[in-house]
Amino acid sequence: MREILEAVAAGELTPAEAESKLAGYATTDAGRFDAAREARSGVPEAVLGSGKTAGEIGDLAATAIETTGRAIVTRIDAAGAAAVRHELKATASETTVRWDERANWLVATDADFERPAIDAGVGVVTAGTSDAVPAGEAAMIAREMGADVTRIDDVGVASLARTVDAVDRLREQDVLIVAAGREGALPTVVAGLVDTPVIGLPVATGYGHGGCGEAALSGLLQSCTALSVVNIDAGFTAGTQAGLIARQVAAVREND
Amino acid sequence: MREILEAVAAGELTPAEAESKLAGYATTDAGRFDAAREARSGVPEAVLGSGKTAGEIGDLAATAIETTGRAIVTRIDAAGAAAVRHELKATASETTVRWDERANWLVATDADFERPAIDAGVGVVTAGTSDAVPAGEAAMIAREMGADVTRIDDVGVASLARTVDAVDRLREQDVLIVAAGREGALPTVVAGLVDTPVIGLPVATGYGHGGCGEAALSGLLQSCTALSVVNIDAGFTAGTQAGLIARQVAAVREND
Amino acid sequence: MREILEAVAAGELTPAEAESKLAGYATTDAGRFDAAREARSGVPEAVLGSGKTAGEIGDLAATAIETTGRAIVTRIDAAGAAAVRHELKATASETTVRWDERANWLVATDADFERPAIDAGVGVVTAGTSDAVPAGEAAMIAREMGADVTRIDDVGVASLARTVDAVDRLREQDVLIVAAGREGALPTVVAGLVDTPVIGLPVATGYGHGGCGEAALSGLLQSCTALSVVNIDAGFTAGTQAGLIARQVAAVREND
Amino acid sequence: MREILEAVAAGELTPAEAESKLAGYATTDAGRFDAAREARSGVPEAVLGSGKTAGEIGDLAATAIETTGRAIVTRIDAAGAAAVRHELKATASETTVRWDERANWLVATDADFERPAIDAGVGVVTAGTSDAVPAGEAAMIAREMGADVTRIDDVGVASLARTVDAVDRLREQDVLIVAAGREGALPTVVAGLVDTPVIGLPVATGYGHGGCGEAALSGLLQSCTALSVVNIDAGFTAGTQAGLIARQVAAVREND
Amino acid sequence: MREILEAVAAGELTPAEAESKLAGYATTDAGRFDAAREARSGVPEAVLGSGKTAGEIGDLAATAIETTGRAIVTRIDAAGAAAVRHELKATASETTVRWDERANWLVATDADFERPAIDAGVGVVTAGTSDAVPAGEAAMIAREMGADVTRIDDVGVASLARTVDAVDRLREQDVLIVAAGREGALPTVVAGLVDTPVIGLPVATGYGHGGCGEAALSGLLQSCTALSVVNIDAGFTAGTQAGLIARQVAAVREND
Amino acid sequence: MREILEAVAAGELTPAEAESKLAGYATTDAGRFDAAREARSGVPEAVLGSGKTAGEIGDLAATAIETTGRAIVTRIDAAGAAAVRHELKATASETTVRWDERANWLVATDADFERPAIDAGVGVVTAGTSDAVPAGEAAMIAREMGADVTRIDDVGVASLARTVDAVDRLREQDVLIVAAGREGALPTVVAGLVDTPVIGLPVATGYGHGGCGEAALSGLLQSCTALSVVNIDAGFTAGTQAGLIARQVAAVREND
Amino acid sequence: MREILEAVAAGELTPAEAESKLAGYATTDAGRFDAAREARSGVPEAVLGSGKTAGEIGDLAATAIETTGRAIVTRIDAAGAAAVRHELKATASETTVRWDERANWLVATDADFERPAIDAGVGVVTAGTSDAVPAGEAAMIAREMGADVTRIDDVGVASLARTVDAVDRLREQDVLIVAAGREGALPTVVAGLVDTPVIGLPVATGYGHGGCGEAALSGLLQSCTALSVVNIDAGFTAGTQAGLIARQVAAVREND
Amino acid sequence: MREILEAVAAGELTPAEAESKLAGYATTDAGRFDAAREARSGVPEAVLGSGKTAGEIGDLAATAIETTGRAIVTRIDAAGAAAVRHELKATASETTVRWDERANWLVATDADFERPAIDAGVGVVTAGTSDAVPAGEAAMIAREMGADVTRIDDVGVASLARTVDAVDRLREQDVLIVAAGREGALPTVVAGLVDTPVIGLPVATGYGHGGCGEAALSGLLQSCTALSVVNIDAGFTAGTQAGLIARQVAAVREND
Repeated sequence: MREILEAVAAGELTPAEAESKLAGYATTDAGRFDAAREARSGVPEAVLGSGKTAGEIGDLAATAIETTGRAIVTRIDAAGAAAVRHELKATASETTVRWDERANWLVATDADFERPAIDAGVGVVTAGTSDAVPAGEAAMIAREMGADVTRIDDVGVASLARTVDAVDRLREQDVLIVAAGREGALPTVVAGLVDTPVIGLPVATGYGHGGCGEAALSGLLQSCTALSVVNIDAGFTAGTQAGLIARQVAAVREND
Repeated sequence: MREILEAVAAGELTPAEAESKLAGYATTDAGRFDAAREARSGVPEAVLGSGKTAGEIGDLAATAIETTGRAIVTRIDAAGAAAVRHELKATASETTVRWDERANWLVATDADFERPAIDAGVGVVTAGTSDAVPAGEAAMIAREMGADVTRIDDVGVASLARTVDAVDRLREQDVLIVAAGREGALPTVVAGLVDTPVIGLPVATGYGHGGCGEAALSGLLQSCTALSVVNIDAGFTAGTQAGLIARQVAAVREND
Repeated sequence: MREILEAVAAGELTPAEAESKLAGYATTDAGRFDAAREARSGVPEAVLGSGKTAGEIGDLAATAIETTGRAIVTRIDAAGAAAVRHELKATASETTVRWDERANWLVATDADFERPAIDAGVGVVTAGTSDAVPAGEAAMIAREMGADVTRIDDVGVASLARTVDAVDRLREQDVLIVAAGREGALPTVVAGLVDTPVIGLPVATGYGHGGCGEAALSGLLQSCTALSVVNIDAGFTAGTQAGLIARQVAAVREND
Repeated sequence: MREILEAVAAGELTPAEAESKLAGYATTDAGRFDAAREARSGVPEAVLGSGKTAGEIGDLAATAIETTGRAIVTRIDAAGAAAVRHELKATASETTVRWDERANWLVATDADFERPAIDAGVGVVTAGTSDAVPAGEAAMIAREMGADVTRIDDVGVASLARTVDAVDRLREQDVLIVAAGREGALPTVVAGLVDTPVIGLPVATGYGHGGCGEAALSGLLQSCTALSVVNIDAGFTAGTQAGLIARQVAAVREND
Repeated sequence: MREILEAVAAGELTPAEAESKLAGYATTDAGRFDAAREARSGVPEAVLGSGKTAGEIGDLAATAIETTGRAIVTRIDAAGAAAVRHELKATASETTVRWDERANWLVATDADFERPAIDAGVGVVTAGTSDAVPAGEAAMIAREMGADVTRIDDVGVASLARTVDAVDRLREQDVLIVAAGREGALPTVVAGLVDTPVIGLPVATGYGHGGCGEAALSGLLQSCTALSVVNIDAGFTAGTQAGLIARQVAAVREND
Repeated sequence: MREILEAVAAGELTPAEAESKLAGYATTDAGRFDAAREARSGVPEAVLGSGKTAGEIGDLAATAIETTGRAIVTRIDAAGAAAVRHELKATASETTVRWDERANWLVATDADFERPAIDAGVGVVTAGTSDAVPAGEAAMIAREMGADVTRIDDVGVASLARTVDAVDRLREQDVLIVAAGREGALPTVVAGLVDTPVIGLPVATGYGHGGCGEAALSGLLQSCTALSVVNIDAGFTAGTQAGLIARQVAAVREND
Repeated sequence: MREILEAVAAGELTPAEAESKLAGYATTDAGRFDAAREARSGVPEAVLGSGKTAGEIGDLAATAIETTGRAIVTRIDAAGAAAVRHELKATASETTVRWDERANWLVATDADFERPAIDAGVGVVTAGTSDAVPAGEAAMIAREMGADVTRIDDVGVASLARTVDAVDRLREQDVLIVAAGREGALPTVVAGLVDTPVIGLPVATGYGHGGCGEAALSGLLQSCTALSVVNIDAGFTAGTQAGLIARQVAAVREND
Repeated sequence: MREILEAVAAGELTPAEAESKLAGYATTDAGRFDAAREARSGVPEAVLGSGKTAGEIGDLAATAIETTGRAIVTRIDAAGAAAVRHELKATASETTVRWDERANWLVATDADFERPAIDAGVGVVTAGTSDAVPAGEAAMIAREMGADVTRIDDVGVASLARTVDAVDRLREQDVLIVAAGREGALPTVVAGLVDTPVIGLPVATGYGHGGCGEAALSGLLQSCTALSVVNIDAGFTAGTQAGLIARQVAAVREND
């Protein structure tokens, strides 16, 4: 902070510039859509589709494209995706839209947008199709942050051989996100087999006592391995955390 | 019931005998110590040491010896064990006392007592020493019910090779009790490897969220394998359930 | 494991065969539908209908028939059942379809399928019609595993005479599954009357505090009898656990 | 209220008298010890011993004797009981002290005290010695309120015959308090056998999930019989509720 | 029991008669609708409408009329009520149908049915319209059991004067049911003003933490007055408990 | 912020002064003891005695005196109070020490310290002695902040007349803190009688379900009156919130 | 109270007048709509729209206008708002209706209604649009109580600069309501920056563990600043509490 | 796996060697102390002192030194530390012992032990002394794994300026562990200021609702930033996860 203040004292910076710099030191405010979030915290701003009307999602996506060249929407259904496509057509710029019907995310980019490329691998591991939504969110955002994402699916502890067969692929990654449905044992088993950081992602499957992902979450928190954890179904958080780790690794690679 | 009533009608049974038989059809009451429990439900009556004074434990143990030839006490400390030894010396009959200092149980038998012998194997599986108390309780009571009990220790999922190495021993058993501390993944992994009935026994290890065995319990209830479960630290219940299963198997063996 | 490795060393097994054997030692992977599950763990693979579209259920059922000769679907409604019938008609082979409208399960078999037959009895006990779904699931899967299943219904503790009247039928079984709605007292009362292993199956009835089966589950876990327990509404788990116990008993019978 | 006001208008009552009457219409305040509680709500004021020093208990007991002729103390240990005896000796009046070492209550009365006598029976039912403290509290306070209290012990559902044998004694009572430890099934079974009002009293036994009486409490709340319930270990509340019901019955008897 | 057995021994009773008597000693089974419930436990059997189709409700109501002269249905909506009317018209006997649209209950009786009349008063107290359903259920069943029921509405603690104004009416009752929504303070305040037994009935109002009646329930269980409690929204249970208490009072009145 | 920056640009402020001002804009850091807290947030820094050794408390108290002229310690026992006295004697300056043995707080001031005086009344209302600790903490800190604090004790809802009798004193206050033990009904009743802001302070009394203040807390959160709430036993928080309100009122008075 | 009674004794008041005054001392009952609430407790009575039919809302709004000149409805949707407009047109008097489509409240006033004006500022602070409903409710009711309400939006802790930028506006208020979604950190950060009383308002955002506002609520209760708290989404309560505080401040201003 | 098998087929490996290799592929078993853990999963094995006798800790520490050259013990008190020193003196080899009295860990190394050195920075951030134990554990294990650990203390959100002042130091780290006591807001605020991965470490401070770290944990799980989380007080897990991330970064640095 003192550097900026000295620059003001020295007349090298106007007070207005200094204010803006001091503000930007924490954040820059581009209205409701936090276009400066990526610069500040390394995580691209995304629109959470659930709880918004198709119209609102379309508006926010257009703003996102305009300010950052890319719109990322999670938990968006077919109607929302259609609204985004419609809204983006109405604007002049050419955009490419990808929509994952299963994992419920949409990414739109304009012609000039160039995704960052991080030379580090993020593995996203699941036991089955019931993990598709949060695992898909995690993979998407890690990829949008630039990481090299690999899906390693159908690795369930109830069929241990599958887990063991996947060991080599697991070990090749720089960081792993492991989805955990039902009793949530998979991340613990994986973390015992690799020396890579593992992020446990509890999935809201199951019913009865400990259902809705609570058993998986508490199991991950109790794991005797070096797991860190995100909230139930928080695929976006797991993916951004993995993306930030990948960035640290890649920053080193680039530095050399 | 009608048989008994017809026997009364036929004068083959006095009303008093019938009443006793009809009562005994559910239970016979030998005072506070339910000496008839084993005959009725296949499970020997045991004294829960915790919450009782050493004197009370000694008295109940003496009654148990007197009525059934054997006293089984769980959750008993050194003082309780000493009290039982002292009390039993004071009585005429010769008794043998075994006390497991680690698993906190005591079994005393008089000279004439003959433990039943069931030709069926119960495996008690643990990940480490923190499972010692409930696993020890389970093993003791299954053995006292007559089963052939095998301990399979140090089988933790964080070191998967140990689990895999134990597969043959696991498959040799007629029924398995698998202790589950921390995140409780072991019983699920084991149940995926064997075609034997597995009883999950959550252990009150761990701290923080899901501590005191709650994470393990909810994980076991959510397991996608064919597990059944008992309460946290309920080694006695797990052992008796395994013992009853072993009895069913053995009854068939004996029938042939 | 060493046997396989020695066979490789001796040239009796190619490395590829050995790899496959070592993999199969835990499981064989027939795609998403785990056709090898029954061989490995004694429990037939089943399709959970809830959360799947009718089309997806139909596809999985067809795969199941193809690979194992039988499709078992739980929590399937009329639309799902229709989809399965339609899908199976489209395939060449002749299939028989049974659908239980009340307990919401469907079992389809092709002409060549032969259900295993286990010479051991599983009793499924309920207090009333609100237990129909989980009890029906439990009975179905135990029967599909080959057990001789008997339903013992309308045995509620609020009308104790009914319970007492059922004692003889209860005692004839090799293993009992007892459904527990509301306060969950029935399994405890039953377990006090028989010397057979009892599996408590909590049912998600009730409302207010302890509703949705939580009171029943915690009551079963606290029971002073030798009960083991499955999760709320986990009829499938209770049935498979009972089936595995029945298999152990029957294996002995067949051995002789 | 209008009656009092008209009496004031008519000069039959001074304003001060009226104020006192209007206040007394709800309660009269005899300092910290609510000596007027019995007159107002039918329940004698009692001193809760736990959390108080022996000296404080002694002081309050002396005040109680002085203002109402009787001191009732619950959850009092040997030291507290000694302090009360010592304090009461120091006062002039002759007092009789009863202390129940097991149920931890003490009742002291002066020579002139005459316990009310209610011509109605309260049954206090337990399964075993672990119910002794709350059941003892309940029995004591119901008796102090004047009811004719009968203890019906060792009636556990795991030995159903004992329950059935007690039916006649259960039916003779005007109101029943049934203690419920562990899984809490007993009050439901009893309420299915009698047409008397039953108050379920959960007891803080058990361990693990649902321990400390929570399983029993939720089971009682879910019971499909006409039970009402009090909090865990709230023997005093159960006893006073039963005493109030007995008073209603007795009031009618006396009216005739 | 011995009396019956001696009658058999004496030939005064055939074994079949005895069996029937011994069974009836607890209950008589009139199929799924427990027609004998009232005789045994003093509480009329009722049909819980929720979770049943209109057709099922209609059938059960017809059976109820046939076996007991009266059908009581709770939690029944307009469609269910129409179905009952339709079903009952189809049967020969003349029936009278009352349906409470607000509290969602229906009572139908045939021409010969005569409701018992108990000379004892049950007060049902509410704070407002949100208590209407459980309070209405409670009032209905207490009335059907024969009690003299009085509604005392709009008595909320946030307007204390209303509570105080109701004191005389509250004191006139033999037993009170007090509904408790939101924070559940009303039953405690009422129980401090009267010497009548009070049954607290928590109502599932409120939102956020402690919502759905949990705050009210736990408040009632913690009350320092002599309250007993039923589960959240368990108006039927509260009403039957009050009815049983009223029966005890009335039995005395009739005895004289 | 811009003002400061412009002053720097104008040379009126050195960069170092500006930095300090910008930092102080939120806080000034006087080491571990936040001496600037009162200036910044209006709440004096206090030392939480529990979990600290007597020596640590003594040290912190001395630092507090040195930097602010006053030391406030909460949850301090006799040993801690002695340590503080001893430590303060060792320092040169004369200090006055007040220790409340019941509410477990200690306030020490040096000779020059002058407590602020706020012309606004804070009422602290309790039902009985079990509320003494948190209510005492609340009263102390509000008084130390300068408010005119009045204790209104023994106002319990189970004896409604006492509550009604206190209405005038309640209405005289500018803000009320109402302690809520057991079922927590008192703040709701009080808030219905006054038009003053009421802060509900749940107290960790009670046992069983909803014990340790949880019933009171959830009841306060559900109250249909305009209550705000603090955590269980958080007397200090309640007192400071009341103190801040009193300051707002007083600021206005002083402004005139 | 004595004043009224002495006036009766003196004949200055008829008994009927006195009764009415004593009743009004707590409240006056204008039927179901508590028209006297504002006079008694300073908080205007409002109609909770959720759970009521459009017709019922319309009726209650008309009554409110009639008795108090204003109708306040919360949680009201478009249909309800239309019903109110329709109902009010049907009545003779001219009314003005404001409906906030986003925050779901409606306020209608007749021509003569004059809102109180309190010379004190209430700030309502939010992090984003997901806080709109409870924050909007809070702002509306504080404004209807007469406070000078300022919205301070888009102040989220994840972009700290925005929070810091708002400090001046935050410090200008007499009392602050700070909405707290997700992890609920904002009120703690704000309370560390100002010396104004802060009321934390948890918002039911979030999912998974701690979702629905529970994490925010428990975070606010644990805050080490001088926060008071209301229930999740209880914007109305927060607004009335702030309004009462503002009234205290303003009363002082007016007194001068 | 196939490589090993082909080596066996080629006679390059004996079956015994192959078995050992295949076992080692997951783990090598050096008795109870898992000496191979570090090689397999990158995390050194540590001894959890709590729940063990001083003698047991001493024995395990000696084994650890013997097999890996280093003993790491967590949650060890003075007696445990003395026992370790005593035990290690008894053995021949020279050892260096460091014991952190505050954070309760001990690390002993023999003369030949060389700690790995990772060229990557781990920051451990706390708000105050109450975070000392888990933060100290985290810092110790990350350092033992070779990371360059920096402590950044006294950064609490209630004094925001301190947090802002620490931004540069925060941004210099490759990965941050941020302790979160009370309401747990600090990690969210920090993660909004940096683009480094942040691991939230909830600390078991606080009391009442959400106490013992539960509020902090749920707040972290709900955070709208890219946090991952470990269990309450799980400093060891946080430290190992940070250490694994640091290893990934360092591996890249070394590769170049």
